[in-house]
Amino acid sequence: MNVDGVAYRSIWVNEDGWSVDIIDQTRLPHIFAVNNLQTLEQACTAIHDMQVRGAPLIGATAAYGLYLAMRDDPSDAALQGACKRLLATRPTAVNLHWALARVTEVLLPLAPAERSSAAFIEADKIIALDIETNHAIGAHGLELIRQIAAAKAPGEAVNILTHCNAGWLATVDWGTATAPMYQAHDAGIPIHVWVDETRPRNQGASLTTWELGHHGIAHSLIVDNLGGHLMQHGMVDLCLVGSDRTTRSGDVCNKIGTYLKALAAKDNNVPFYVCLPGSTIDWTSSDGVSEIPIERRADSEVSTISGKLDNGQVANVAIAPDATPVTNYAFDVTPARLVTGLITERGVFEASETSLARGFGRQCSDSAG
Amino acid sequence: MNVDGVAYRSIWVNEDGWSVDIIDQTRLPHIFAVNNLQTLEQACTAIHDMQVRGAPLIGATAAYGLYLAMRDDPSDAALQGACKRLLATRPTAVNLHWALARVTEVLLPLAPAERSSAAFIEADKIIALDIETNHAIGAHGLELIRQIAAAKAPGEAVNILTHCNAGWLATVDWGTATAPMYQAHDAGIPIHVWVDETRPRNQGASLTTWELGHHGIAHSLIVDNLGGHLMQHGMVDLCLVGSDRTTRSGDVCNKIGTYLKALAAKDNNVPFYVCLPGSTIDWTSSDGVSEIPIERRADSEVSTISGKLDNGQVANVAIAPDATPVTNYAFDVTPARLVTGLITERGVFEASETSLARGFGRQCSDSAG
Repeated sequence: MNVDGVAYRSIWVNEDGWSVDIIDQTRLPHIFAVNNLQTLEQACTAIHDMQVRGAPLIGATAAYGLYLAMRDDPSDAALQGACKRLLATRPTAVNLHWALARVTEVLLPLAPAERSSAAFIEADKIIALDIETNHAIGAHGLELIRQIAAAKAPGEAVNILTHCNAGWLATVDWGTATAPMYQAHDAGIPIHVWVDETRPRNQGASLTTWELGHHGIAHSLIVDNLGGHLMQHGMVDLCLVGSDRTTRSGDVCNKIGTYLKALAAKDNNVPFYVCLPGSTIDWTSSDGVSEIPIERRADSEVSTISGKLDNGQVANVAIAPDATPVTNYAFDVTPARLVTGLITERGVFEASETSLARGFGRQCSDSAG
Repeated sequence: MNVDGVAYRSIWVNEDGWSVDIIDQTRLPHIFAVNNLQTLEQACTAIHDMQVRGAPLIGATAAYGLYLAMRDDPSDAALQGACKRLLATRPTAVNLHWALARVTEVLLPLAPAERSSAAFIEADKIIALDIETNHAIGAHGLELIRQIAAAKAPGEAVNILTHCNAGWLATVDWGTATAPMYQAHDAGIPIHVWVDETRPRNQGASLTTWELGHHGIAHSLIVDNLGGHLMQHGMVDLCLVGSDRTTRSGDVCNKIGTYLKALAAKDNNVPFYVCLPGSTIDWTSSDGVSEIPIERRADSEVSTISGKLDNGQVANVAIAPDATPVTNYAFDVTPARLVTGLITERGVFEASETSLARGFGRQCSDSAG
């Protein structure tokens, strides 16, 4: 999407024709910096340190990581080792597995000398597929926004609440939860987005606001505590969030705090939709709350916050007494009963096994491996 | 309660015998500083700038503010003017009104020369009443904790989730939501407290952690997004929160985000109790969501965060792109249907008009004025 009028993606092949560029998202919103990846290790670091984040972008970066590994050593052992290294960077990301399985399947039958260029082509296909997928999610979500807008006075904005950053920075382009927003805005439908700051890592405050602002979409930053109050007072027409992993029964594992917003939406009859590519459906899991392992992350994510000082420098500040104990889980699970619908590249589905199987079953259970 | 083994209150008469000392809570947790109040204006600033916060402590500070005003000018006009100035500092705090009405009622019939010492005595009574009230809240809440502990294995901690700071720093001593915790701890019942950081002002991260840590109570700082996940996984036995204002029907107006925790508690059958002194019941209001005006506060509370740099200095950092629009409401309303019970100085009541009227009706409708 646009950054000051220039169209960007979150990952692309450098003008040298072989290395890979990413936007270093840990430096946003205060610094717009591009990192160049030339090795497997650099790709692993980019994923592990969350310079790239978001399920689809992690998958794309992992695919390019395999390609970079094959440039250095195209042996079977190196291929296996690279997959292992990449898988270890973010254990919960389902389509990290998916992307690696897909590239590996192409590479294994090939002679080592052919692997590097084949991996490059396959990574490129994964990127093209992601863009196509997100555009399709956007088109299906756009129809929902169009219906809500039609019931309002002309010119009155549709108020959409979103959590975390399921935006174009989390994918290659369009985003998942943001794809309907960008398409509605580009179609001239007035929208306004409530952006949850999304503690502890503040992806909403730092990334979603940055995305929406640079594309020219009206928005307001809010604390994670506010959404319930807004919904009680009729100030939210629609919730749109992303998903890190969705069970075959429609339970949604997403950024910590998503469940609380879904509860508030249910309590106030606000439609709560989850935007996701079929590749993030986990067909092996049916009960999200009991079955999905939740990543526990560093205490420092909670006890310190990064931001910009008055002098323009970026610094961490401690917000609690020294040595305060912290508990920090990165995701939670929103049970299917709280989800109005799942917006996918194949259309909008009920959050149920029957509905998802009808739309996806066979293909995804193959590709999820 | 204790600070490094020394018993403190949040407000006290200075050793000079006439001026008033408070803990400057805007500087906690990094700096423990005491401010000396000698004038009405200093008392107003202390309330307005949230050096003192929490309904009961605001009331006590306002009472001392009237006393300081009377020292300078005990005329009727000065008394009226002082009440007006103090009322304007925090419009939603019901027992700011209550404390001022109580002191004014005593002063009006008196000759101006008698007013200063009478106001001092009345402020002292308000403080003594607050301590007695909170101790009684603690005793009733302690019984609930004792029952939960009795159902656990010996030595297993009772896990309590709290939001914001309804602690001794928000009152004169004991706190409201924390009073049962301090009494349980002092009685040797093992407890562990999940402390919501409570964005945007982080009273949980900065004050509740500081209080509990200095008194020696086990606790963990968590982001506001986490409570739902913890409740889904059986990691919370009891929620205890405070209340800024409670309608006669039992709707609870409290720090923004309380409603979301109450929804999660309901969804997971976790008892959700609100601790409050009878003086904060608003007998004129029956529908909290539609009737209670919610204070909208400065954007900068959301877009910047205060904390301690590595060099020990306290600084503000900006967490969003420059000029990001913000919406910031300070409170929300938790409907009575989500409240398991109201813990007051007179016992534990259902969150209903019938139940509250039985326990409080006559006296509070008189004193709330």
